[in-house]
Amino acid sequence: MANCLAAQSGGPTPVINAALAGLLEANNEEKLYDKVYGGLYGIEGILGEKLVNLIYNPEENMLLKQTPAAILGSCRYKLQDKNEADFIKILEVMDKYNIETFFYIGGNDSMDTVSKLKKYAEKAGINKRFIGLPKTIDNDLALTDHSPGYGSAAKFIASSVLATSYDFNVYTRKDVFIVETMGRDTGWLAASAYLNKIPDILLLPEDTFNKEKFLNRVEKCLSTNNKCYIVTSEGIKDSDNKSVTSLATESGDGFDHITLSGGKAANFLRHIIINEKLSESCKVQDLGVLQRCFSPSLSKTDVEESFQIGKAALLASKNPDSTGKMMAIKRNSGKEYNVSFGLVPVEEVANKVKYFPKEWILDDYSGITDGGINYILPLIQGSPDIKYKNGLPVYLKPYYKFL
Amino acid sequence: MANCLAAQSGGPTPVINAALAGLLEANNEEKLYDKVYGGLYGIEGILGEKLVNLIYNPEENMLLKQTPAAILGSCRYKLQDKNEADFIKILEVMDKYNIETFFYIGGNDSMDTVSKLKKYAEKAGINKRFIGLPKTIDNDLALTDHSPGYGSAAKFIASSVLATSYDFNVYTRKDVFIVETMGRDTGWLAASAYLNKIPDILLLPEDTFNKEKFLNRVEKCLSTNNKCYIVTSEGIKDSDNKSVTSLATESGDGFDHITLSGGKAANFLRHIIINEKLSESCKVQDLGVLQRCFSPSLSKTDVEESFQIGKAALLASKNPDSTGKMMAIKRNSGKEYNVSFGLVPVEEVANKVKYFPKEWILDDYSGITDGGINYILPLIQGSPDIKYKNGLPVYLKPYYKFL
Repeated sequence: MANCLAAQSGGPTPVINAALAGLLEANNEEKLYDKVYGGLYGIEGILGEKLVNLIYNPEENMLLKQTPAAILGSCRYKLQDKNEADFIKILEVMDKYNIETFFYIGGNDSMDTVSKLKKYAEKAGINKRFIGLPKTIDNDLALTDHSPGYGSAAKFIASSVLATSYDFNVYTRKDVFIVETMGRDTGWLAASAYLNKIPDILLLPEDTFNKEKFLNRVEKCLSTNNKCYIVTSEGIKDSDNKSVTSLATESGDGFDHITLSGGKAANFLRHIIINEKLSESCKVQDLGVLQRCFSPSLSKTDVEESFQIGKAALLASKNPDSTGKMMAIKRNSGKEYNVSFGLVPVEEVANKVKYFPKEWILDDYSGITDGGINYILPLIQGSPDIKYKNGLPVYLKPYYKFL
Repeated sequence: MANCLAAQSGGPTPVINAALAGLLEANNEEKLYDKVYGGLYGIEGILGEKLVNLIYNPEENMLLKQTPAAILGSCRYKLQDKNEADFIKILEVMDKYNIETFFYIGGNDSMDTVSKLKKYAEKAGINKRFIGLPKTIDNDLALTDHSPGYGSAAKFIASSVLATSYDFNVYTRKDVFIVETMGRDTGWLAASAYLNKIPDILLLPEDTFNKEKFLNRVEKCLSTNNKCYIVTSEGIKDSDNKSVTSLATESGDGFDHITLSGGKAANFLRHIIINEKLSESCKVQDLGVLQRCFSPSLSKTDVEESFQIGKAALLASKNPDSTGKMMAIKRNSGKEYNVSFGLVPVEEVANKVKYFPKEWILDDYSGITDGGINYILPLIQGSPDIKYKNGLPVYLKPYYKFL
């Protein structure tokens, strides 16, 4: 019986391992492949023949479902058509280990890898299958209603906004609070901050950032409420499509010396608010990588969907048509939220970006519509039972540490 | 029957409301006071006669236990002996509302307020009681084994370190990660990051910060592991007891232009690591106010102890000796962790600082001893059942919003 190979790529999410757990469970149930190999550090590790034999164990698989980040390690390595040696090497490794199907769990770049490998094998007349499994907290993948990882990140962001808004309001003093979320190109993450309509101001990359308009809104908000709660995406851009970070660098007013690893957008906004003397106090909360890994606040819906995608991908993989496809989520119509899974052509996903819809963005940076809220809300429902030991969640040891 | 008054002060914690919930429940059971008034915005609101009648309701009380930040609002207002009018006004308000006992839930400054009010009333021959209830995530209050709020903050920090360490390690590249915790004067919070011994480097305010020693440690760590995970308290100081923030301002090497609301220590460390070319990549995670309010990862032990302190304080308050005291936690001896509650003189708590013990600090910024870990570990145990609605925790509405 042939084997299969799974690897993970791109930025980690809290549920990328749940997809792997689904693959392993489905193969344990259906025995479609003799062995499931794990490729360490994505494509990079496969090129270096760093494979581990993933042996199914029910207890470990349960822990794998609640372990954040990529248990197999990750990479940002991109296959390029001009580097044919990479393609040859990957197919060699697959041959050597009798690997029939390669499952790649990742975002845009990973889908590009799947697409390229599928085309190369096809052209070379090699009968191997390449299947993509979506994951990205950014939720920017095309042809899928949403991406595994987004629901848990959205839940963490919305919970953080709710909690910090309580913290922010305890004093009587005039005050501004700015939360920065991830999302370099799209506003899905920042939009989730608005689920209970707390932010006074919400800045998304899809909405043009205008300094005067923004400062006017802050001033108005402070004069009415004495408080202003702002949420910004890291990737807000001005009308020339320039990021706020580059604006800051060009401003020459002191902010250009700043080198920060994160929180640049929020600190720039803080800088202009204080410079304009709108408020003496202005706190910044950069959610940082916590939003993509903080497992104590996972969305059960998100974890289970990622797990089901893993299962569905494995079950579909014996069909020769499955190569060059990504397992996508379809939201079924009807009042109750439910989804089904199906394959979509990976080349129509690769290198595309699904933006937050303009029609869901309210004027004057004041939030998102109920349409937007109703889209996001089902994705954050439920809390999985997390296994704790000594007061902390139990995670499976990363496989890449064992090499 | 006389009434009592409760108010909250200082920085919010995730369990300051649990203490209030305990007070309310004990009074509902024992009917020691006719009414429990809530003073809004601490002393500041009481001076302005902003009181609400807190009516016990079992369901609301359960929500109060899981609501972070101060439900009655908070203040940083300090009573000063020279402002006698403040003392007169507070006693007037207490007279007007037939208030026999004033419970003040807070940290060092709040205990100073309790102490001053007790002394003033005593001198004036006024028969009223003033009782302190401890709360501070900083864990720096004297005469109590630990402070309510610390356990939940420690649990959030340790969980964050565990999750982000998984996120940090997925790539093969050389990399540095720096987490900043709160704790301006004491290292209790930063020390909790070491509960599962993840940080390679741990910087506490009680340990002198030496730039060369620190950079040597980073270099050594990177040459061995290619990765270096650092946790720093916001309040690290050099041998002249100067904070890293002031060092940064004096350095004149570009960092002095920086104005940040948080993450100053971590960004300063990042700055010197990059300047010394030890690593090109260095990410900062400032935990910010999340560590004092993120309710989805509360410690059940912490919530219950805060609740019990509220109950114990109310029950003890009919004893005339209770005035000028704070309800403290005593850790009982024995193998199993358990505590009892008892009153301690508030003037021996006020304006004192309990530092992280030097004997628990390992050499070379390498962490804390098992003695330190064993002290912290029982405080983060258990997760309370949190009530969710629409995927998010349900919080009680703040009382101060109703004015």
